[in-house]
Amino acid sequence: MKLQIALLKGDGIGPEVTAQAVKCLQAVEETFGHEFHFKEALVGAAAMDAYGDPLPEQTLELCKKSDAVLFGAIGDPRYDNDPSAKVRPEQGLLRLRKELGLFCNIRPIKVFPTLMEKSPLKKKVIQGTDFVIYRELTGGIYFGEKSLSEDGTTATDSCTYTEAEISRIAHLAFKAAKGRRKKVTLVDKANVLESSRLWRRVVTKIGESYPEVTLDCMFIDNAAMQLLLKPSQFDVILTENMFGDILSDEGSAVGGSIGLLPSASTGEHHALFEPVHGSYPQAAGKDIANPIASILSAAMLLDHFKLDEESRAVVIAVLKSIKKGVVSPDLSTSSKYGTSHIGDFISGNI
Amino acid sequence: MKLQIALLKGDGIGPEVTAQAVKCLQAVEETFGHEFHFKEALVGAAAMDAYGDPLPEQTLELCKKSDAVLFGAIGDPRYDNDPSAKVRPEQGLLRLRKELGLFCNIRPIKVFPTLMEKSPLKKKVIQGTDFVIYRELTGGIYFGEKSLSEDGTTATDSCTYTEAEISRIAHLAFKAAKGRRKKVTLVDKANVLESSRLWRRVVTKIGESYPEVTLDCMFIDNAAMQLLLKPSQFDVILTENMFGDILSDEGSAVGGSIGLLPSASTGEHHALFEPVHGSYPQAAGKDIANPIASILSAAMLLDHFKLDEESRAVVIAVLKSIKKGVVSPDLSTSSKYGTSHIGDFISGNI
Ligand SMILES: CC(C)[C@H](C(=O)O)[C@@H](O)C(=O)O
Ligand SMILES: CC(C)[C@H](C(=O)O)[C@@H](O)C(=O)O
Repeated sequence: MKLQIALLKGDGIGPEVTAQAVKCLQAVEETFGHEFHFKEALVGAAAMDAYGDPLPEQTLELCKKSDAVLFGAIGDPRYDNDPSAKVRPEQGLLRLRKELGLFCNIRPIKVFPTLMEKSPLKKKVIQGTDFVIYRELTGGIYFGEKSLSEDGTTATDSCTYTEAEISRIAHLAFKAAKGRRKKVTLVDKANVLESSRLWRRVVTKIGESYPEVTLDCMFIDNAAMQLLLKPSQFDVILTENMFGDILSDEGSAVGGSIGLLPSASTGEHHALFEPVHGSYPQAAGKDIANPIASILSAAMLLDHFKLDEESRAVVIAVLKSIKKGVVSPDLSTSSKYGTSHIGDFISGNI
Repeated sequence: MKLQIALLKGDGIGPEVTAQAVKCLQAVEETFGHEFHFKEALVGAAAMDAYGDPLPEQTLELCKKSDAVLFGAIGDPRYDNDPSAKVRPEQGLLRLRKELGLFCNIRPIKVFPTLMEKSPLKKKVIQGTDFVIYRELTGGIYFGEKSLSEDGTTATDSCTYTEAEISRIAHLAFKAAKGRRKKVTLVDKANVLESSRLWRRVVTKIGESYPEVTLDCMFIDNAAMQLLLKPSQFDVILTENMFGDILSDEGSAVGGSIGLLPSASTGEHHALFEPVHGSYPQAAGKDIANPIASILSAAMLLDHFKLDEESRAVVIAVLKSIKKGVVSPDLSTSSKYGTSHIGDFISGNI
């Protein structure tokens, strides 16, 4: 298979972890006889420094004409603590999601048995945890109208959802559940929000055409609690943009390391793959970042193009690195392995 | 001291747990020579059944002329799964908060050493956890404009905050931190929301007049994760309405039982005290509900009126019940004690 892959390494540890994912994709290319073409472009703070724009036109163009985007991380402390800044690195990512129509963000959360002791949760609580979050990614309060009164004393954000926006991701979540444990949990705040009530109506209706899948509805406050008390109860969590942001970070802590979690964002025409973790600027350039989330994001990229065997080869190589202890300091305090060495080890085992 | 206390027992287990809190307040009354007058009124589903209104006029009137409100719980499954219902029990509570101007919701989260093994988190993770959430309670997306398009396919909720709304609760949070470990963590989503950026500006400014208190800002997704990874890092968490709802439920799971957590909601002129837990309808009338959250809410009521010794007496009696194992089944699977017996035990020890 021939694939054009846009590399948007971004900020902080983005470049170094993405480089390891590229090594793995190159190993797949050789081993399985594919042709992957990588082209790089700037995004985030790196692009602001170079072009004054977190998503320059040429970056967007590259993504649009590529088959997939491999994304690193975004965010820079130089911009974080300036709430009045007009342009922020994160806007690059948000605009990219919107421009590419990436409405469906998929974040699988699984507990690696060998890493159970890393979790802040007790073993008996996390045992059997294996769920996936389907987060709506291009609607809701992230993209609603925003305003600030002229005197700067009143600010408003609005959260809008349409039936069409809810319906397209709901179908994907139900389809995913059919291939899994056949349960969808819709997370909302229908006792307070009008938009949540629309989600509940639309999703309940769609659920009727998936009779083999059970639909549960849960309020977000309760879900944030249940994720701690009994994470194994979840199979597919379906939710809107902001609630999905919160639950997926919380969920990532359940497994013990956000450094392990990949994600895919898909739309009609495009797909982007990125680790769930952020740019972790304190670790940038130190060769201590965990490249696994980025490598597993590359595996999700392979899955997306139905390269199942190839994806499995990457996952198996990752599991081997964990089993052999070839991991970064966040996973093992006695680790002597650097980001790049781990990338070599994993790609060497593909 | 003479106090008029409005009793709004509400739905589900509300009535039975509130009854135990009243026993405790009556014990305080006798032991310390105060005069507490209790008057009951309906709220929530109970009020809808009787008057078709979750907050009847006479209930609101009673609350307005009382010194404090002791609240049970609200919510009924008969109304939960009907997203198109025009009136819902929860609206009673929301309107009550708004009408009484209860803008500041205070939820202390502490881990009882004897109950550590109840927590889903490992002991080494929760050790030293002792924080309090200051949640803004009468603004934001809970009370913003809501709309549904005529054809029912587009729904909008809006989230507005003003400098004045932020400022009044921020001062309370900083003052609380001064008497504690001197740290405020503002939780927001300033990289996405205009309203969060206003929070950040206003709170940062106010922080300057509390030089002895350190101010940290944290994004909500990260906060939801940090609450699991290192809950002991927090002292006072200050946040807007929806984020506070989510974090306080998540936080309540950290301690192992939501059945232990009290809350106070205060404003210029009124104050309401309620357990963090909901109406738990499956347990209603079975004498198995945990009355401690309601009893500790009564202790917060005493604190509010500067009856410090009295409040301490209640807390000590609660600790005794936990130590002696006179607790409900949620805290000890071998428990043979009912809600009412536990209330007798605790009030008998005041
Ligand atoms: C960087 C930020 C805007 C982004 C989001 O909130 O969506 C991030 O937290 C994520 O979850 O991908
Ligand atoms: C019942 C509901 C409306 C309420 C809220 O969301 O505020 C509850 O969850 C709470 O936290 O007191």
